[in-house]
Amino acid sequence: MFKSIELGLKVSKEEYDQRLPQLRSELLAAQQALKGSPVPVIVVVSGVEGAGKAAVVNALTEWLDPRGVETNVFWAPSDEELARPEYWRFWRTLPARGRIGIFFGSWYTDPIVQRVTGKLKSAAYDRALQRIANFERMLAEDGALIVKLWFHLSKKDQRKRLKKLESDPATRWRVTPQDWKFHKMYDDFARASEQAIRLTDTANAPWHLIDSADAHHQKLEAGRLLLEAMRQKLDALRQAPPRPKGAPPVPKKLDTPTVLDRVDLSRKISDKEYKARLKAHQSQLNLLTWEAHRKKVSTVAVFEGWDAAGKGGAIRRVTSAADAKLTRVISIAAPTDEERAHHYLWRFWRHIPPAGRVTIFDRSWYGRVLVERVEGFATPEEWSRAYLEINEFEAQLVERGIVLLKFWLHISPDEQLRRFKEREQVEYKRHKITEEDWRNREKWNAYLLAVHDMITRTSTDVAPWTIIPGNDKHYARVQVLKTFCKALEKAL
Amino acid sequence: MFKSIELGLKVSKEEYDQRLPQLRSELLAAQQALKGSPVPVIVVVSGVEGAGKAAVVNALTEWLDPRGVETNVFWAPSDEELARPEYWRFWRTLPARGRIGIFFGSWYTDPIVQRVTGKLKSAAYDRALQRIANFERMLAEDGALIVKLWFHLSKKDQRKRLKKLESDPATRWRVTPQDWKFHKMYDDFARASEQAIRLTDTANAPWHLIDSADAHHQKLEAGRLLLEAMRQKLDALRQAPPRPKGAPPVPKKLDTPTVLDRVDLSRKISDKEYKARLKAHQSQLNLLTWEAHRKKVSTVAVFEGWDAAGKGGAIRRVTSAADAKLTRVISIAAPTDEERAHHYLWRFWRHIPPAGRVTIFDRSWYGRVLVERVEGFATPEEWSRAYLEINEFEAQLVERGIVLLKFWLHISPDEQLRRFKEREQVEYKRHKITEEDWRNREKWNAYLLAVHDMITRTSTDVAPWTIIPGNDKHYARVQVLKTFCKALEKAL
Repeated sequence: MFKSIELGLKVSKEEYDQRLPQLRSELLAAQQALKGSPVPVIVVVSGVEGAGKAAVVNALTEWLDPRGVETNVFWAPSDEELARPEYWRFWRTLPARGRIGIFFGSWYTDPIVQRVTGKLKSAAYDRALQRIANFERMLAEDGALIVKLWFHLSKKDQRKRLKKLESDPATRWRVTPQDWKFHKMYDDFARASEQAIRLTDTANAPWHLIDSADAHHQKLEAGRLLLEAMRQKLDALRQAPPRPKGAPPVPKKLDTPTVLDRVDLSRKISDKEYKARLKAHQSQLNLLTWEAHRKKVSTVAVFEGWDAAGKGGAIRRVTSAADAKLTRVISIAAPTDEERAHHYLWRFWRHIPPAGRVTIFDRSWYGRVLVERVEGFATPEEWSRAYLEINEFEAQLVERGIVLLKFWLHISPDEQLRRFKEREQVEYKRHKITEEDWRNREKWNAYLLAVHDMITRTSTDVAPWTIIPGNDKHYARVQVLKTFCKALEKAL
Repeated sequence: MFKSIELGLKVSKEEYDQRLPQLRSELLAAQQALKGSPVPVIVVVSGVEGAGKAAVVNALTEWLDPRGVETNVFWAPSDEELARPEYWRFWRTLPARGRIGIFFGSWYTDPIVQRVTGKLKSAAYDRALQRIANFERMLAEDGALIVKLWFHLSKKDQRKRLKKLESDPATRWRVTPQDWKFHKMYDDFARASEQAIRLTDTANAPWHLIDSADAHHQKLEAGRLLLEAMRQKLDALRQAPPRPKGAPPVPKKLDTPTVLDRVDLSRKISDKEYKARLKAHQSQLNLLTWEAHRKKVSTVAVFEGWDAAGKGGAIRRVTSAADAKLTRVISIAAPTDEERAHHYLWRFWRHIPPAGRVTIFDRSWYGRVLVERVEGFATPEEWSRAYLEINEFEAQLVERGIVLLKFWLHISPDEQLRRFKEREQVEYKRHKITEEDWRNREKWNAYLLAVHDMITRTSTDVAPWTIIPGNDKHYARVQVLKTFCKALEKAL
């Protein structure tokens, strides 16, 4: 693959100086045009050591308007990064829509180095590359422009470059012992890199290979490829069909049974039993969360359910048992502007706890396939692909050792009506019942379908749903606590 | 101080149940009214161990609308927190305007515990408390409502409470050996706490002492005090005079000389000298930044200057020398919505580097006393108090061992005009020159005054300004690099 681009193309200083001004103005114009668009631009700068990547990054940031560009370098991960799933550090740094993020070192670096040094076997390497491809596809489908540049240098040229740097006292420091070590492993790197490029060279996020033997050619080529990609994206934006608007119709009647039909809503417990079991489970949960803290095991618990199903009450029974020092509740309301300017999962990645903590989501990323689907805020393409995105996201959490709990609190429409009316009677509960709740209620069947699809498609081995019969609040709370304790016991 | 609140006030279960509904609806109404306001609410929950603070936090989060509330617990700091100034972790968690942040454990905890355990001597303790008072005043002046609740329990009651918890197998886990250890040090804690309360009990952020012998009384009192504070703030908002609008007039002529008059703008160097010195300094800077990395010394460099003074060019000479792995450039443009929803320093605290990195600010927090002052975006009260706020902020950076550099790139009005015209001629430079630049130029005298005040008031011992004569770009760049190297050499 690499041989075919070693063409020895050269650009003279004169030609470079002559061509640069136009390239710069065109890059600026494209950047300006993308500024107000929903497109974040992700530039991955990768390739061979000594190929002059840093100089290219410096050139790009010089040519573009620096106020819209961030350069991210991935370096030894911090403790906070190590204490979370691997991709957390990348999510942290993704550019907002309309901005350009240059990734100097990226999600490619670790897998390639680990493959070459033998830490990743062939199958694990392919899986790591598959994860990259999924990640990039997800971002691209969300509107991102991904431009991946691979800077290539032949083994001979790499050697020459290193020697030349070493011969000048002023640049000697640029060559590290590791550079020579990696130079000796050139062929291994080439093989691993070829594999990486092959498995991640997708229509949404293609690779561009750049012969870097000549610095002028290399820089102009990098600029040209970025410009071309931005222009294509701008064209695509202009030709994009308008977003469908409005909510889909609510089915009057459902033809097929749903997973919720089988839930036994008659389950209940006596007051006496409730008090005894609540106390026992809460005490157990407290001990377990402290043990999990010692063992650096985190818990992420998602609470979803019908309006008035008792999410808040159940969550408070958990938080009053687990130590407040270890626990954090994230109530999901409207996203902030910064959150809106990213992929919808970004706002949840923000809140992923470090090792040894408990994070409770009062509503969650499932909003994408529930309210956003039913209300038409997400297009069918968007919410349909969200199942896969969510499964991948949750798999990453679980892989990192996080205990993931997902509760659906289920109640009957009659019980909901009773609670709505009760809320209207009690003044301090009145804020909990809004016009929107009544409107949602009219869409019961549409939600029912959405819940059915959600539970069916995202109940994976590693992240199953727990459906809690909630007509009896006490019963529901005890079940939640019991499930919490069991999951922690199993993990510890 | 504490004796006087040990009044043995009790509220019966009946009275509690009877009074609670009204309190809850009023709290909700006040929260709702503050929601769209520019007021972040900061509730500090502090006090004696065993006083039931966790139960109060749980009650408050139950009574309020949880979507507008965040509870922050300060626990052993993470590595990323330890690698930055002490207050970084608090800045990270400050609530946005319209939201409520409950701080369970706060900036008070460490100083008090360190005082009691002897790690802080009396003078250092007073200084730590003074820092707290400054911090809270700053937030309050920016519009925050700060409600500080101190939950008190007599030594006898604390003992009783701990004994009672221990006697029940279901609550035994709540009592830790540390609780008993601290109980023995009760009087020391009382003394240190009294001192803390006395020095930080300000008009802007007063303390409320709550007798916590009776749990019903304690909770109602906490709710009542929070409600009262929110209502007072709402009243104050209604009575606040409208913000003055528009920019202040630009002085035609300045009566007094400014610090910039003394700058020798005729300084220049030859091309040959430039090339030699650039290379030498860049090579030195590279080595120094790596050494700083090894020694975990961070650098924060601020670049301010006239439009077209050459900030970008100087910054690129630094970034192309220092390793991109260690360096980050933050270009300050318009704040995001999340940034606008906080104190203006919040967006800069966000970018404070962990130990061993270089962060370059292309424009900075000095915008407050430059463009915001000249354009009237900040009121005279706001930009006048910013000098102190900035000095305190920078002192915290330097205290943590950060090397702080502040460059003002100075050019003459004539040189600026020449560069503006040149920019208009070169197509890829044209984006750098806008209508705004021409307008700013007309306000030269107003900026001159603002720069003079800024340099005079914020050139502190620990964070002096470096004024760079910039009419000759090459000279300026070499000076910047030289200053950079010298500061690092001195620190290492």
